[in-house]
Amino acid sequence: MEIYEKIAAILSSVRKERPLIHHLTNYVTANDCANIVLALGGSPVMADDVGEVEEMVTHAASLVLNIGTLNKGKMEAMLLAGKEANKRRIPVILDPVGVGATAYRTEAVEKLLQEVKPAVIRGNRAEIKRLLGLNSRLRGVDSLEEAENSPELVLNLAQRLGCVVAMTGERDVISDGKRLCFIENGHPMLTRITGSGCMSTSLIGTCCGVANDYYLGAVAGVAIMGLAGEMAYMSLSGTEGVGTFRVRLLDSIYNLTEKRIIEGVRISPLAP
Amino acid sequence: MEIYEKIAAILSSVRKERPLIHHLTNYVTANDCANIVLALGGSPVMADDVGEVEEMVTHAASLVLNIGTLNKGKMEAMLLAGKEANKRRIPVILDPVGVGATAYRTEAVEKLLQEVKPAVIRGNRAEIKRLLGLNSRLRGVDSLEEAENSPELVLNLAQRLGCVVAMTGERDVISDGKRLCFIENGHPMLTRITGSGCMSTSLIGTCCGVANDYYLGAVAGVAIMGLAGEMAYMSLSGTEGVGTFRVRLLDSIYNLTEKRIIEGVRISPLAP
Amino acid sequence: MEIYEKIAAILSSVRKERPLIHHLTNYVTANDCANIVLALGGSPVMADDVGEVEEMVTHAASLVLNIGTLNKGKMEAMLLAGKEANKRRIPVILDPVGVGATAYRTEAVEKLLQEVKPAVIRGNRAEIKRLLGLNSRLRGVDSLEEAENSPELVLNLAQRLGCVVAMTGERDVISDGKRLCFIENGHPMLTRITGSGCMSTSLIGTCCGVANDYYLGAVAGVAIMGLAGEMAYMSLSGTEGVGTFRVRLLDSIYNLTEKRIIEGVRISPLAP
Repeated sequence: MEIYEKIAAILSSVRKERPLIHHLTNYVTANDCANIVLALGGSPVMADDVGEVEEMVTHAASLVLNIGTLNKGKMEAMLLAGKEANKRRIPVILDPVGVGATAYRTEAVEKLLQEVKPAVIRGNRAEIKRLLGLNSRLRGVDSLEEAENSPELVLNLAQRLGCVVAMTGERDVISDGKRLCFIENGHPMLTRITGSGCMSTSLIGTCCGVANDYYLGAVAGVAIMGLAGEMAYMSLSGTEGVGTFRVRLLDSIYNLTEKRIIEGVRISPLAP
Repeated sequence: MEIYEKIAAILSSVRKERPLIHHLTNYVTANDCANIVLALGGSPVMADDVGEVEEMVTHAASLVLNIGTLNKGKMEAMLLAGKEANKRRIPVILDPVGVGATAYRTEAVEKLLQEVKPAVIRGNRAEIKRLLGLNSRLRGVDSLEEAENSPELVLNLAQRLGCVVAMTGERDVISDGKRLCFIENGHPMLTRITGSGCMSTSLIGTCCGVANDYYLGAVAGVAIMGLAGEMAYMSLSGTEGVGTFRVRLLDSIYNLTEKRIIEGVRISPLAP
Repeated sequence: MEIYEKIAAILSSVRKERPLIHHLTNYVTANDCANIVLALGGSPVMADDVGEVEEMVTHAASLVLNIGTLNKGKMEAMLLAGKEANKRRIPVILDPVGVGATAYRTEAVEKLLQEVKPAVIRGNRAEIKRLLGLNSRLRGVDSLEEAENSPELVLNLAQRLGCVVAMTGERDVISDGKRLCFIENGHPMLTRITGSGCMSTSLIGTCCGVANDYYLGAVAGVAIMGLAGEMAYMSLSGTEGVGTFRVRLLDSIYNLTEKRIIEGVRISPLAP
């Protein structure tokens, strides 16, 4: 089965199984993340009190940890939920939003990586570089790094951490330390709405909730986000802009078909 | 006056009186709830610090308590606000989101019901069953219960707690312990966006802010949500989906007329 | 250069410089605020833990403090971020949401004004009156004050606090204690969606992130919000309402041109 057909099969599984995706996430894009999981066919739940996260995650098909608006209580809850998920072999998807922008975020992510083993990490170029200990240029939580073709960064981090790494940007790079691919979908307008990164992470979480191979889950989530961005952009007319784009993004995810995935996704596997 | 005319009259009162609806709610759907209250004609306020909730609720026409993303501080504030509302005979509308999914939620709702007397409780079938002490099947905060015709559940809980109970789902059932009705409005697409339940609760809160009869307020809120869902769905064309549906839901509430309510709402009163 | 051309020039600068706007804000409208900053061309970041706000603000072009859903931790973080911004001459934009509605809010704003010097304060008439120690009529966080022509209120507060004051409403009044103007843009539908005020404040923050003259930054932010509201309203057809209006508001900001500003903004400078 080709990779396009595998991604299409993941879409079908999401719609059939309706996986529960437990999120500990930020309050800025939580609504967008919940809606995109629902649009794809999954079932989101956001619960982040230390008193309930360990029990809630036992019901989940995957756990998304997003540090967008982190605080002490949420950090503690992430450690509890993450460890419980590890124990139960529920995949953990980590979005290290703005790591490197403040020491607080950098230390939080280091602590999380010491205590919780993620299945997938998704970040922009600056975040991925920072996780490798390299200097990176961030503005707030957005990457200012030049777009360059750096599959070795992603490969290195995936090997070092023993997990799948997805670096999203103009060209997405995904690796599990052995396999590696580029995804060429997407549209620049995705950088003009809040939550594109967070929503990609939530889609990865949804796909990993039904896929045993988390590399494939990550590829599916990122590819679906990019393809939906293209579909949303192409649907715009005259005076429409980012407001309508956000609406059509959800419409596009909701109306996605296996056929559309097979025809529209553009993946270049470099290895193996 | 027929029940349809009474609901239509509630719509007129909301637009005339612009009731202030104080919410202690979750951060996932707070924006949706604020917008739907405004679309109907009410005035939402979200304030949840223990230092101000008792004073804020004194200005309110009703109080909505939604435990979606509960934590210790918010729980404490809910108890304070709820007791103050009870003292001042301001109706309290409780949405026990995901009760039964974790012990934390179940205990929180028990505590709330010990200390605060709600005017209305709105939940899905699994949540209502759990409040009766029955086993129920939840996935996260969504009900997995079979749709069945179970007016006695609702009647029992309403009698036991001495308040109005609204069980929403494919067919909504509402009772105050004496009267009971079914509402047949709504559309399955409402289950594919986040916050449908929360928004119904906020609409109930808005209607109870102007109605002296909270049974009527609950019927009005649920019926208006269902009718708006139908109107939103019917307006969709070709490639539109859940994104556009969310937008049209607010449009439909905003443009609702008394005539549309009288023609479109479908209620079967079973008793008296 | 005329004031219209100066506002148009601010738009160009925002798109060129992409200023980072650090927000400590409420969870109800945070998503709307992030999206409107992005639509205009800025780059929003929301981070509010005491452990990182002082470092995060050092990267920012301006700091927005919005007390919509204030709590103890957020208050502490606002003081830290505000003082650091003052030290670095980064403009602070304060939105005293609902000041006067509860003693808690009133005291919080007094404390903020004792320790942090804002560049701009934006509020509705009731909030501005309360900051002057006058009685005002609020319903929750919305003003119930009669629309009246009261430039002296704004002038007085601007002189007393030594900052720019923007009072928004049917007719906006802005002053820095010397200069004063009215802005006649806007549409009543802006009062039927949540976050209009918060979004205006975020637009002021974005404009002050590139303008050295914060009076001009405030005028630009308020005028752009009003103009976008008009454009959004004019684009509505038959059954569209507040849902579509919210979408078109972002579209309008995104598609705004210098020409549109020069032709559409209506400012009456009273002084000098």
